Amino acid sequence: MKIVIIGAAGMIGARLARRIAADGRLNGRDVERLILADAVPPSVPDGWDDRCETHVLDIGEPGAAEPFAKGRPDVVFHLAAIVSGEAEADFAKGYRVNLDGTRALFDAIREENARSGHVPRVVFASSIAVFGAPFPASIPDDFALTPLTSYGTQKAIGELLLADYTRRGFMDGIGLRLPTICIRPGRPNKAASGFFSNILREPLRGEPAVLPVSEDVRHFFASPSAAVEFFLHAAAIDGASVGPRRNISLPGLSATVGDEIAALERVAGPEASALIRREPDETIRGIVAGWAPDVEASRARALGFRADASFDDIIRAHLAETGSMGSDASG
Amino acid sequence: MKIVIIGAAGMIGARLARRIAADGRLNGRDVERLILADAVPPSVPDGWDDRCETHVLDIGEPGAAEPFAKGRPDVVFHLAAIVSGEAEADFAKGYRVNLDGTRALFDAIREENARSGHVPRVVFASSIAVFGAPFPASIPDDFALTPLTSYGTQKAIGELLLADYTRRGFMDGIGLRLPTICIRPGRPNKAASGFFSNILREPLRGEPAVLPVSEDVRHFFASPSAAVEFFLHAAAIDGASVGPRRNISLPGLSATVGDEIAALERVAGPEASALIRREPDETIRGIVAGWAPDVEASRARALGFRADASFDDIIRAHLAETGSMGSDASG
Repeated sequence: MKIVIIGAAGMIGARLARRIAADGRLNGRDVERLILADAVPPSVPDGWDDRCETHVLDIGEPGAAEPFAKGRPDVVFHLAAIVSGEAEADFAKGYRVNLDGTRALFDAIREENARSGHVPRVVFASSIAVFGAPFPASIPDDFALTPLTSYGTQKAIGELLLADYTRRGFMDGIGLRLPTICIRPGRPNKAASGFFSNILREPLRGEPAVLPVSEDVRHFFASPSAAVEFFLHAAAIDGASVGPRRNISLPGLSATVGDEIAALERVAGPEASALIRREPDETIRGIVAGWAPDVEASRARALGFRADASFDDIIRAHLAETGSMGSDASG
Repeated sequence: MKIVIIGAAGMIGARLARRIAADGRLNGRDVERLILADAVPPSVPDGWDDRCETHVLDIGEPGAAEPFAKGRPDVVFHLAAIVSGEAEADFAKGYRVNLDGTRALFDAIREENARSGHVPRVVFASSIAVFGAPFPASIPDDFALTPLTSYGTQKAIGELLLADYTRRGFMDGIGLRLPTICIRPGRPNKAASGFFSNILREPLRGEPAVLPVSEDVRHFFASPSAAVEFFLHAAAIDGASVGPRRNISLPGLSATVGDEIAALERVAGPEASALIRREPDETIRGIVAGWAPDVEASRARALGFRADASFDDIIRAHLAETGSMGSDASG
């Protein structure tokens, strides 16, 4: 089969590409061709030089999506997006890439469907940013889309297009509202949600980390591995069992910041948790207070999507991937 | 003040124009200029030749909306749309007019806002077609948008854009999800919802009408006058009291077909109701079974939107407007 990943240089997209390449199969069929696209050059997975093509492009540019649709891929993973902060800072760019780019991709698939009748599975990365406060402590599957950011608005519009293009038979789409990813790889950044990862990742390599909120803050999470599993599962799922509501709130591991720290201490010892410095930040506290503590995700669970089992497992998997615990926390 | 109505030749748009012209005022201020646009020529209200301009245009054409935004109107009523059946039959046309046209109007307003800081009130005609079955018997205000038509999808996207452009401060939008209009003027048509009006309007002029569903079918309604009141109220309402959720499910008069017929008999006598012929139609029954019996509309009621009081009143108002009861029913 032929697989396209748009956004293949991103945190999840790159992992997804490596995983599909390593498996060599998807949905029980051999993968013959892997087509990776992003705004920056995607990496070719090991041993795939002959079967992988990479493209550097701006999905928001007219015509950019057409070649991918014309190649009649079996599965298209669409993860490309201008992230929340940038979509808020640059209104036109966010709408051009996140709305026009997504619509152009879906329209290219529609046009290929008109030519050849080809109906690819399309897995679209949406976000819990489609929800906006106030909401209940656990957001039900049939809760209103009331985004409070332009990014959330663009993702909600992408969801609506995906559902309508699927209902029309142009494609077979599944939209995934991902939980907050934790532990994010890389270095600490300024994102308001960064501390959820920072307070684990940095101590695990012996570095200090700042906690700007209190330990009773609750949120829900998916490890990078769980996120990849979600995309693979969405590619394999029977569309008929999903019905017309094609956009699915995914289950996360519900945990407080205190739960995270307790897991860190169990896995890496008190030396690790001692590296967390409490520095309350009212701005971040306010932003985080507007986020959903959890989603019900009843439909996703019924469809076989599974959350991580524990933060202990998430931390152990992170350590297994990154190699060592760092000198301070390894004792 | 200066008022723009886009869709001013339609059933509600034309009534709204006549009403504003007759009042001569809106929100306690004199109306100096009335700008009416539609795909077919709008009528100039009586006595408004000097203060009313009309435009014939396709809102889906690039640049069509710009002049209206540049004129810095105080209020823009946007009712122009390709209707449900046509948007389903002609995919590209529905998206071009209902999505691209709406977005182009909002973008033209955004661009004028960037130039001059002008922030008009924008009242957008949305629809209960943004909801799709299954839903509870009375749809709550925070229910998911899961449209099952392209028209409903395009209206839901318009709602999301309106909320985001308002949150950004480019305009001050209110989206109205209107109940089914009854009694629709004109002749019987093939729309699945047509019978709700036909079984009143036709007997009231002494003509027979066909009832394709059983008398226990429940739905919710607004008279054309109530719909006009909704638009006027939305133009006057304090945006701050609405908050970030700018799209509002409006209250309707909840009634069964049997309630309609009983009201017809009370107002126009058994000769009128005897003109209704029962001809069960499984297709129409099936379509109507997928519609919402009612919406909660708690927010709309709290904001002062009011449903019609009774079908008796709706029928009397229709008679007062159309003149006579027709020979057969006048006895």
